[in-house]
Amino acid sequence: MFKATVTIRLRPSILDPQGKAVHHALQNLGYQAVTQVRIGKVVDLWIEADSAEAAEQVAQEAAEKLLANPVMEDFDITVTPLKIPASAG
Amino acid sequence: MFKATVTIRLRPSILDPQGKAVHHALQNLGYQAVTQVRIGKVVDLWIEADSAEAAEQVAQEAAEKLLANPVMEDFDITVTPLKIPASAG
Repeated sequence: MFKATVTIRLRPSILDPQGKAVHHALQNLGYQAVTQVRIGKVVDLWIEADSAEAAEQVAQEAAEKLLANPVMEDFDITVTPLKIPASAG
Repeated sequence: MFKATVTIRLRPSILDPQGKAVHHALQNLGYQAVTQVRIGKVVDLWIEADSAEAAEQVAQEAAEKLLANPVMEDFDITVTPLKIPASAG
């Protein structure tokens, strides 16, 4: 069992109004040191596979086909082995 | 200039209907190897600070006060140094 973490971020050229709103809120709270905020998603996938490479392949396909928007978003994947299955099914 | 990445996940005891929906969609696409899906947020903060420790302190406070819901969510923070400022202001 592996856990694949797919981190999905808007491409740098894409405006992020949600990040702008959080930036504004942080400024209002007095955090002037924060100069930019961008917000993305993290998707954790528990994958039954024989190897980390096989698990990463599943995560890669899931990200390309379903999780990420290839026009607006980039993603990266990290895979970690798990000793104990996270769920029965 | 540092980039702090705050990764925010629902606590394990909290139901994640969005993750369940993605899991269901992956099953329908034929990815039976995926046994569980959970979805969180990633917030990238560009922070002007003298040290990584100072930047992490700002990110920690921002996460506690604004970004994360302490009842339902956990977060972790990674800080990386940046050579070039990401924005002018």
